[in-house]
Amino acid sequence: MNFCSQCGGAVSLTTPPDDNLPRHVCTACGTIHYLNPKLVVGCIVEWEGRILLCRRSIEPRYGLWTLPAGFMENGETAREAAQRETLEEARAHVEIDDAFALISVPHVNQVHLFYRARLLEASFSPGLETLETALFAEEAIPWREIAFQTVTLCLRAFFSDRAAREFHFHEAALPPVSGRI
Amino acid sequence: MNFCSQCGGAVSLTTPPDDNLPRHVCTACGTIHYLNPKLVVGCIVEWEGRILLCRRSIEPRYGLWTLPAGFMENGETAREAAQRETLEEARAHVEIDDAFALISVPHVNQVHLFYRARLLEASFSPGLETLETALFAEEAIPWREIAFQTVTLCLRAFFSDRAAREFHFHEAALPPVSGRI
Repeated sequence: MNFCSQCGGAVSLTTPPDDNLPRHVCTACGTIHYLNPKLVVGCIVEWEGRILLCRRSIEPRYGLWTLPAGFMENGETAREAAQRETLEEARAHVEIDDAFALISVPHVNQVHLFYRARLLEASFSPGLETLETALFAEEAIPWREIAFQTVTLCLRAFFSDRAAREFHFHEAALPPVSGRI
Repeated sequence: MNFCSQCGGAVSLTTPPDDNLPRHVCTACGTIHYLNPKLVVGCIVEWEGRILLCRRSIEPRYGLWTLPAGFMENGETAREAAQRETLEEARAHVEIDDAFALISVPHVNQVHLFYRARLLEASFSPGLETLETALFAEEAIPWREIAFQTVTLCLRAFFSDRAAREFHFHEAALPPVSGRI
């Protein structure tokens, strides 16, 4: 951040009074610009026991498989975000079930939130950010080609809970040293 | 948003190609500036069955009671945010337990996340954004003087679960018509 989005003045990194972190503060109008983590919201979509995955047509992780998920937008609820992202990335209509996992990814300033969901009909196809969409049985999940660690974590917890016939909420953080999402 | 934080150029609200929402796009350098919801993270701190509340010394809701909570910062995990906010607002050291509630507040572009936690010692006092800190038994909670609807929701769910001797994760959204947090 170099300029103030309010007045166009130059910003400098200084710690405001009563604060304890350096912020981007406008040298002209004094506006303090805070930078905060973003929520990435998606879902684990089930159809007859199989899971819907999307192969990414965009960077990062072009060509790898992921759960339908993306940045939550202003003005929507987390559930709406999960539903919208699934529609956009996999052209799939889903009913959202319980929240399933929340994973902090501090080294990229993100928090990933996944719901369980089920397909309303066996209909899906790649959206703009997707090369391919497909349903995978647990045994067929392409573990070595999963795009993000949070997706791997989430899927492993899902299958473990499903085997135990009891889903509960999972909360975790990726270690900052891991260097990837 | 009037100016580009990258180059200082004027921004205009236009829908980029392959997008479906208007964004603040720089007319000079083309940078797209996304605005996303912020996470507010806090905790329900217990000490011998009583709950730690903070009376706000800042707007909005000056003088009303809230759970220690605040905006999550870049570079931290959600748990670290809950712990830090409790230290800043109530000068209290806590051990964070399970995630307890996630509440979307779409009309203010926020998501509130609360953990259960316990005080490590019976020591707390007002931080800079707090007039007063106190422990309340369930019967003494000042329900009519709670600062935010999400805090009321969270406390009610907490006492209900505690009475049932089983805590589970709660996920909800405030109706957009409510007009307040």
